[in-house]
Amino acid sequence: MTSIESVQTERFTVPLDTTFSDSTHGSIPHFEFVTVRVRDTDGAEGMGYTYAVNSGAAAFDALITGYLEEVLVGQDPDCVEKLWQDMWWKVHYSGRGGHATSAISAVDIALWDLRARRANMPLWRMLGGFDPRVKVYAGGIDLDFSLPQLLDQADAFVAAGHRAIKMKAGRPHLREDIERVRAMREHLGDDFPLMVDANMRWSVDEAIRAARHLEEFNLLWLEEPTIPDDIAGHVRVVREGRTPVATGENMHTLYEFQTMISAGGVTYPEPDITNCGGVTIFRKIGNVAEAHNLPLTSHGAHDVTVQVLAAAPNCSIMEVHGFSLDHYVANPMVIDEGYTTAPERPGHGIDLDWERLGTFKV
Amino acid sequence: MTSIESVQTERFTVPLDTTFSDSTHGSIPHFEFVTVRVRDTDGAEGMGYTYAVNSGAAAFDALITGYLEEVLVGQDPDCVEKLWQDMWWKVHYSGRGGHATSAISAVDIALWDLRARRANMPLWRMLGGFDPRVKVYAGGIDLDFSLPQLLDQADAFVAAGHRAIKMKAGRPHLREDIERVRAMREHLGDDFPLMVDANMRWSVDEAIRAARHLEEFNLLWLEEPTIPDDIAGHVRVVREGRTPVATGENMHTLYEFQTMISAGGVTYPEPDITNCGGVTIFRKIGNVAEAHNLPLTSHGAHDVTVQVLAAAPNCSIMEVHGFSLDHYVANPMVIDEGYTTAPERPGHGIDLDWERLGTFKV
Repeated sequence: MTSIESVQTERFTVPLDTTFSDSTHGSIPHFEFVTVRVRDTDGAEGMGYTYAVNSGAAAFDALITGYLEEVLVGQDPDCVEKLWQDMWWKVHYSGRGGHATSAISAVDIALWDLRARRANMPLWRMLGGFDPRVKVYAGGIDLDFSLPQLLDQADAFVAAGHRAIKMKAGRPHLREDIERVRAMREHLGDDFPLMVDANMRWSVDEAIRAARHLEEFNLLWLEEPTIPDDIAGHVRVVREGRTPVATGENMHTLYEFQTMISAGGVTYPEPDITNCGGVTIFRKIGNVAEAHNLPLTSHGAHDVTVQVLAAAPNCSIMEVHGFSLDHYVANPMVIDEGYTTAPERPGHGIDLDWERLGTFKV
Repeated sequence: MTSIESVQTERFTVPLDTTFSDSTHGSIPHFEFVTVRVRDTDGAEGMGYTYAVNSGAAAFDALITGYLEEVLVGQDPDCVEKLWQDMWWKVHYSGRGGHATSAISAVDIALWDLRARRANMPLWRMLGGFDPRVKVYAGGIDLDFSLPQLLDQADAFVAAGHRAIKMKAGRPHLREDIERVRAMREHLGDDFPLMVDANMRWSVDEAIRAARHLEEFNLLWLEEPTIPDDIAGHVRVVREGRTPVATGENMHTLYEFQTMISAGGVTYPEPDITNCGGVTIFRKIGNVAEAHNLPLTSHGAHDVTVQVLAAAPNCSIMEVHGFSLDHYVANPMVIDEGYTTAPERPGHGIDLDWERLGTFKV
């Protein structure tokens, strides 16, 4: 029987082209990137990754190397549901989510890549294809951009093929947020899909006030209006704010999504495949959303995420992430008139440029 | 101004006298132990710790050394609320609870110890004393003990001064659990406080069935009947099981406790001071419980926890933990007729035997 032979983990601190900023994470000069390569006894290999904004990735590395690897080696690589449970319970007492879920996500993505490569299928087909053409949007990380910079960035996004854009909010005064959104709406035209992301900056009542002031700009959604821990607060923002709400990038378990979704606190669940538990859990979150008649979106890691969204009947629109991982990928995603197409290469089809990445190895 | 000069972290794998077992963590031959010593520019020092069951502690170490230390050094050690927030947001994106909260807990305990030592006060007095005499119980980790072993352990607990005992449940057949609880009840007498801990083993309906079968044994509480992620399930166990429910050792944020408490899913909140966020958050969980008219209990780490429970008007009964940390403490807690007394030494008053611990350093 084929079994898992080795699990190889590496950690990188990758600089960004531009220092980004949002209302919560402040200045973001680099991102932390952890890769996992799982090799089986037939010599097949799958690759997965996770990342962090500025800090925390050393814990991912420590968890995979110190605890998850021993759970995996010698096991059947096809049984991802079993391996996922074994990993979850291995580090449950010490974490139950949080850093554990990012570590597990990286491994889980590698396992799904391995499975699909072994089957010589693209991952989205293995997952049960729905539509390889996935609508995308550009996720701007631009809270501190001047207004001209913000509009220039929008033009660049459109020139790159984008037909939907998300911008940051959460400036010191709501008046500034309103002016910036108004300027973007006027610049982009009435029908251009526009989202606003507050990165948890507001109290519930501030969020409701902001949502009502922004209502006239017809936003596709308002994202992370407040901390994801406040379920009752999200329900109020959805009901009283009169604007659809997206949240999920800081939610790390299937149960958190289920609780928020069934309470009615989110319109667009937006899991991040690299921190919600990988392909295995992203799919299940999508299924829970579908069962609740909700559209599914995503956060970050578009090159992996496209595979799962291309297999999701309730796929809405996928974030194309601001981080510059594309510089280190042999065949970066192509965007055309607001859509991308899931590749037909086996697995997730991402080939990292290990030599270029190597410069930033920790 | 006095500021934090250094943060020193060490990790140990400490063997247990007896290999413990419960329904979720299987065989537990050792525990992982991470210490933090925070020293200020006046030369004063505070000590904190956290631990893990079998696995995961390398992540605590990585988080403190890699990310939290830089947040702390140079800051005013008295401003624990500010330092707590700074630590939380430093590793929020990568964790939001989980391993981050254990790392923060260890530092927070050290900061409170430092504050109290500087003030030359025992911590429980600094926190606003309520009653230094705290009722305790012995937490048995004994799922796989034979019946004679289980009863012998109970006798040993009573001989050691205990007047309340918790035992494990979650055997393959409910019949076995019932027989073991019946034997313990007969052995200990009708009025002896007895608790049962299922370590998340059951589905909600299994837990309700078990609670009803165990009702005749008049348990003080049933602990962790199912996974802590299932809030609605806990509400059902409380209401339909007709036995008080304790949970919390696997809940890692103030928000998780608030959500479970306000939903009515727990009778006895039982935070673990080493993984809920330290002294700062344990107190707040106690306050939320008090505001909801609930008694407060605890999990693990009795030598630190006694300080906070001795300052809590809603203190019910404190777990005296099974792990053998007492072997490495200069003045272990004394138990007398079911009570202990918070010490009058400055800080939390725990002096670790670093030389003995050193043998198990990782």
